[in-house]
Amino acid sequence: MSTGSDQEGELLARVFLSRVLEPGDEVAGRWLRELGAMEVEGRLRDGGPQLVGITDKRWAGLLDRAREAEPERDLAAAREAGMRFVVPGAGDWPGQLDDLGDARPVGLWVRGRPSLRMWALRSVAVVGARACTGYGAHMAATLGAGLAEHGWVVVSGGAYGVDGAAHRGALGAGGATVAVLACGVDRCYPRGHTELITRIAEQGLVIGELPPGGHPTPSRFIVRNRVIAALTRGTVVVEAAHRSGSLATARAAQRLGRHTMGVPGPATSALSAGVHELLRSDAVLVSDAAEVVELVGDMGELAPERCGPVLPRDLLDPGARRVLAALPGRGAAPPREIARGAQTTQDDAIAKLYELRSLGYVERHGDGWKLTRQAMISVREGRSRC
Amino acid sequence: MSTGSDQEGELLARVFLSRVLEPGDEVAGRWLRELGAMEVEGRLRDGGPQLVGITDKRWAGLLDRAREAEPERDLAAAREAGMRFVVPGAGDWPGQLDDLGDARPVGLWVRGRPSLRMWALRSVAVVGARACTGYGAHMAATLGAGLAEHGWVVVSGGAYGVDGAAHRGALGAGGATVAVLACGVDRCYPRGHTELITRIAEQGLVIGELPPGGHPTPSRFIVRNRVIAALTRGTVVVEAAHRSGSLATARAAQRLGRHTMGVPGPATSALSAGVHELLRSDAVLVSDAAEVVELVGDMGELAPERCGPVLPRDLLDPGARRVLAALPGRGAAPPREIARGAQTTQDDAIAKLYELRSLGYVERHGDGWKLTRQAMISVREGRSRC
Repeated sequence: MSTGSDQEGELLARVFLSRVLEPGDEVAGRWLRELGAMEVEGRLRDGGPQLVGITDKRWAGLLDRAREAEPERDLAAAREAGMRFVVPGAGDWPGQLDDLGDARPVGLWVRGRPSLRMWALRSVAVVGARACTGYGAHMAATLGAGLAEHGWVVVSGGAYGVDGAAHRGALGAGGATVAVLACGVDRCYPRGHTELITRIAEQGLVIGELPPGGHPTPSRFIVRNRVIAALTRGTVVVEAAHRSGSLATARAAQRLGRHTMGVPGPATSALSAGVHELLRSDAVLVSDAAEVVELVGDMGELAPERCGPVLPRDLLDPGARRVLAALPGRGAAPPREIARGAQTTQDDAIAKLYELRSLGYVERHGDGWKLTRQAMISVREGRSRC
Repeated sequence: MSTGSDQEGELLARVFLSRVLEPGDEVAGRWLRELGAMEVEGRLRDGGPQLVGITDKRWAGLLDRAREAEPERDLAAAREAGMRFVVPGAGDWPGQLDDLGDARPVGLWVRGRPSLRMWALRSVAVVGARACTGYGAHMAATLGAGLAEHGWVVVSGGAYGVDGAAHRGALGAGGATVAVLACGVDRCYPRGHTELITRIAEQGLVIGELPPGGHPTPSRFIVRNRVIAALTRGTVVVEAAHRSGSLATARAAQRLGRHTMGVPGPATSALSAGVHELLRSDAVLVSDAAEVVELVGDMGELAPERCGPVLPRDLLDPGARRVLAALPGRGAAPPREIARGAQTTQDDAIAKLYELRSLGYVERHGDGWKLTRQAMISVREGRSRC
């Protein structure tokens, strides 16, 4: 059995590794799998014995970084600034990231209140070109809003163009959105999205593998994309030129067995050419949020809805229980009213509502929220599972 | 063995039936299969015994039509006006129409010089909305031109919008095109396409199941679509709203095992919604002629090219032999020059060049035509097949 201090040691080791290792390093991922985070940390702190599969020069580079790492300080500063660090196996760890194998993140830095694990359960990635057309921005915003209205969480990369439009669409519809950054989550990149990313951190989640202060590089954008692909049920590419980074996200989703979708555009548009290339392989053409939901909602998720919520009420955190109790017995209520009943802020109520949505307790109804039929039955019959 | 007068009897019987039966009537198709055209003609002329699978009222209707039919006069008038009637099994019959089973046309009325059988071998249908957008017209014209430049014959329905743009694109690129009408081929429908259809009859082929003077009806448009689908290697839908007739053509192509393709458009366009619906089923997304050719050229056709032309030179008709002889031994020549060498008109030379293209003798090269490598080898080695 693991003790509290083991868990703290594992957490600190992984904070240390998040500063020392480069995201997506599969060789290091193998060390972690074979030796455990604390042993790998020890070797790097002690300068050896050298680990396998790496040149002397790169090993020396890691030791340089290791000498400067101060995980306790990192963690304290992060907590001070409202960030947390989530590690594999922890309560809020999204298990689907384990599909990445040795490329799994050593941990994720998180800004924002909602449960990452719960939100990721019902999430879809909407990605695409930074320099998108007006059509691309329109489609991304419409999809973001439509997915939010269907009770799905919109995941994207926080970039200009399609990403930003998708986040804004979700936020504008009173929905849930997650930005996965290629830099430290205390930074706002790109600069022009400072306000947007700040708002996402307040109303949703901003996550990333880089430690506080970490800066984005071209290769970090590429490895970041695998997290977007793995975290979600499926990836929709809205606009992408040939050889666009969004196509890499889509291909990663395909390799991981996630749904891969593309929004068509004029055959004359270079910014749709990459999407069309994708649609000529295994991706599914989607024109609106309903078609996305039809596809990503087709497996796994329906089962708990048919037989009642997956998690007993008693195991919900107190905040979620309060929000659940604030829902009317019949019909829907707006988030404002639910927040009042639960004595919390509207942002917090929405965060909790999307968590409860993942668990099958509630569903969106226009701009409001209501109990699912299954949740009502489970209350009436005094049971929380079928 | 069938004699000349048998053949003439069969031809006249089918001319008679093309006036009496409604195109696509599968019950009548079964009579033809089981009893032969001449026996069916006899029963209809004699007023019985009544054939199976039909109400008394419909039988009486057919007898009314039969009393007015004058096949000898029809055929003579048609020949006078430069039309011919091609029946199953005849030299110019496109064998792929036999895939229609009992819905196979009893025969086809044809205006234009080229060989229907040869042209159909390497043909693609380009169809779509009558009230298309500027984008749809642009894509249809570009595809029509591109297919012609790749040496493929463009088949469509002669209608306004996408059909007309596809025909014009092919003609404009010095290419081959076939209009399949839902009325008598002596008529120009729609009226506004009188000039276009006349030009197609001069430079290409205008074909249809209805006898001279036959007028189009809504149901005739629908049954006409199966001929477009069956005649060609594949069908491309350029723009189509939900429940559009072009989608029926595409579905018929799918049922017949032909390639079905769609040109994407903005997800916001109602005129692309039907195409997107198609692309969400089994159709392949195509953005240009090269992608169409890649798909439709992938089977059957390549074999004869690899091992030499399919038909020995001696069996070519004298006109085709003259055109073939007019091609330069090396490099390409424009149709004008080839026509001069073959002592014929440019239209006739182009018609023959597309026939020779189907047989693997020649290929387009920019605006000109040249011998295929296989054709040159077969000449050099004194053989016409490998």
